[in-house]
Amino acid sequence: MSLFGFSLKPRRAKTAQTAKDRLQLLLAHERAGGSGAADFLPQLQNDILEVIRKYVTVADEDVEIRLQRDNAVSSLEINIEMPADSGKKPRS
Amino acid sequence: MSLFGFSLKPRRAKTAQTAKDRLQLLLAHERAGGSGAADFLPQLQNDILEVIRKYVTVADEDVEIRLQRDNAVSSLEINIEMPADSGKKPRS
Repeated sequence: MSLFGFSLKPRRAKTAQTAKDRLQLLLAHERAGGSGAADFLPQLQNDILEVIRKYVTVADEDVEIRLQRDNAVSSLEINIEMPADSGKKPRS
Repeated sequence: MSLFGFSLKPRRAKTAQTAKDRLQLLLAHERAGGSGAADFLPQLQNDILEVIRKYVTVADEDVEIRLQRDNAVSSLEINIEMPADSGKKPRS
């Protein structure tokens, strides 16, 4: 399954018999100046997770986060596995 | 420049002389049940944009959003261009 050229690779079969939904988020921040300034991804990561939790129930142990930073590009990858149909009503 | 197998492709040179930062976000939700239920990406899209605006100044016209949905996978792509060094202090 390939979307936009990035692929949802099969996750480890931790709970092989349980149907799982998967949420994959990739975020890249490319800085023209290459200054290394304004690197807000570590904070943004928490905010995004909080926002996702408005919609689905996510256990901490089912979240996998990778953060990479160099001078010109910072990138954030968040992989979440959750029981199928774990959706919930968003808070208003 | 390729990260995780997805590539930050060069954007249109709308303001060719101005250094631009770019933020690219890709999000895919794969539903095990394939039911089409719990498709919260349209709402999540607004929440994520709001969260990003805590950290950087983003003009509406610099945001490009693509949302795709089928039975098993919904995906969201957000591309943002912003002036270099448009970072701001996050609200507490």
